[in-house]
Amino acid sequence: MKLELVEDDETLDDLQLNGVYIIQKKKSFRFGVDAVLLANFAKVKPKMSVIDLCSGTGIIPFIIGAKTKASHITGIEIQEDMTDMAERSTVFNDMEQRLKFINRDLCDLKFLKSLPKVDVVTVNPPYKLKNSGIVNENDKNAIARHEICCTLEDVIKAAKVLLKDNGKLYMIHRPDRLVDIMCTMRKYSIEPKFIKMVHPYINKAPNMILIEGQNNGKQFLKWDKPLYIHDEYGGYTEEIDRIYGRDRRDNDGNR
Amino acid sequence: MKLELVEDDETLDDLQLNGVYIIQKKKSFRFGVDAVLLANFAKVKPKMSVIDLCSGTGIIPFIIGAKTKASHITGIEIQEDMTDMAERSTVFNDMEQRLKFINRDLCDLKFLKSLPKVDVVTVNPPYKLKNSGIVNENDKNAIARHEICCTLEDVIKAAKVLLKDNGKLYMIHRPDRLVDIMCTMRKYSIEPKFIKMVHPYINKAPNMILIEGQNNGKQFLKWDKPLYIHDEYGGYTEEIDRIYGRDRRDNDGNR
Repeated sequence: MKLELVEDDETLDDLQLNGVYIIQKKKSFRFGVDAVLLANFAKVKPKMSVIDLCSGTGIIPFIIGAKTKASHITGIEIQEDMTDMAERSTVFNDMEQRLKFINRDLCDLKFLKSLPKVDVVTVNPPYKLKNSGIVNENDKNAIARHEICCTLEDVIKAAKVLLKDNGKLYMIHRPDRLVDIMCTMRKYSIEPKFIKMVHPYINKAPNMILIEGQNNGKQFLKWDKPLYIHDEYGGYTEEIDRIYGRDRRDNDGNR
Repeated sequence: MKLELVEDDETLDDLQLNGVYIIQKKKSFRFGVDAVLLANFAKVKPKMSVIDLCSGTGIIPFIIGAKTKASHITGIEIQEDMTDMAERSTVFNDMEQRLKFINRDLCDLKFLKSLPKVDVVTVNPPYKLKNSGIVNENDKNAIARHEICCTLEDVIKAAKVLLKDNGKLYMIHRPDRLVDIMCTMRKYSIEPKFIKMVHPYINKAPNMILIEGQNNGKQFLKWDKPLYIHDEYGGYTEEIDRIYGRDRRDNDGNR
């Protein structure tokens, strides 16, 4: 089981997906539902190449790696210890043939330009503006959550450099940033084409947005039906159970 | 009852709102749920002044006039016969003190600049791009539905000219135009501040968007909970009944 890859302050988490596991720090930034939703929102066809920006411990590459026949998935992450965990998870899962992680700043456009263009870019970027309530700029959680190391515009500029013509950008973000997202995507000719709102409950405002942009795409925005996280009883909805691969059958095998 | 104001090819429709009626052609463009939703979405405080663009037969001014203590509400409409109906409805409802209709092209910015600045602009503009399936450019329905006489940018440019500093623009539109709406509003420094999605059913994609922009407003977009038109049984939801002023009590007075 190669358990020697996991350090004492880390956990090994089962993604419930073809036996794929991910290494995370016990007490630092751990992946959330947003990463899982984004990985499931991205349409990745067989043989496509993918780059995941702000990759963290690699949750999105591991899910896409497990669920699709993508040829190559590369995660780019600015924090060295996160990249290190992602690399050890890659070895743990025997995915070295398809997954690769690079410890690099996505603002290094010269480096990004040196990479082969890809079909898909995914990104679960820091949601919050730099000045919104940061205590410590070196805090790893703050770097993952606030625009300290990269802004929304940096992310979209990076995607522009990485994508093939007509390639797709998939992003999850906060609804309150939608004007910024749409205007910045259009500024770089990555046209918003498909959007899905995520609501915690049916009668609550959305708290996440899943958006697909197409590099040099034609102007037309299609809306998906909303995704509700919880049902009226506070449990998870069927769609969430399906995304998480949870079985709804009871003991008799009925659904 | 001043019924002589209503012509043979017209109907007189009860808005179920403090006894206000509206004159419409039997066989031409008639107001829909979108106008009613927009009139209810706009926040109009006592003594505020309002201009309604693309006003048609005046449905939005009549609802706002009946529901609020706005000091003045002016409708601007390019089609002469629609303005004529709106004027006759004004007389019919004895609302000449607060309501006024002007037959004018909203692209006439010189004229718009001559008007006193207002607190609120409302607009239910033509939704469809000019080239999407038009049969006849002189058709009144086509003018109301397609961007023949004015584009989205014309509408926002007009609002910019009409609004006081920090004044509000309220618009209803199609979700597929949201990128255009957000980018154009920001282009003219009318910042999108509040948005409400309208869904025909809980599990369907939205088919209308209600959006509030603020002239020279600060960047932050707040989302309201969604509005669902129909419940799971195909009837109207409580929120729609409330907007239409329908009583939900049964014969025993229970709700």
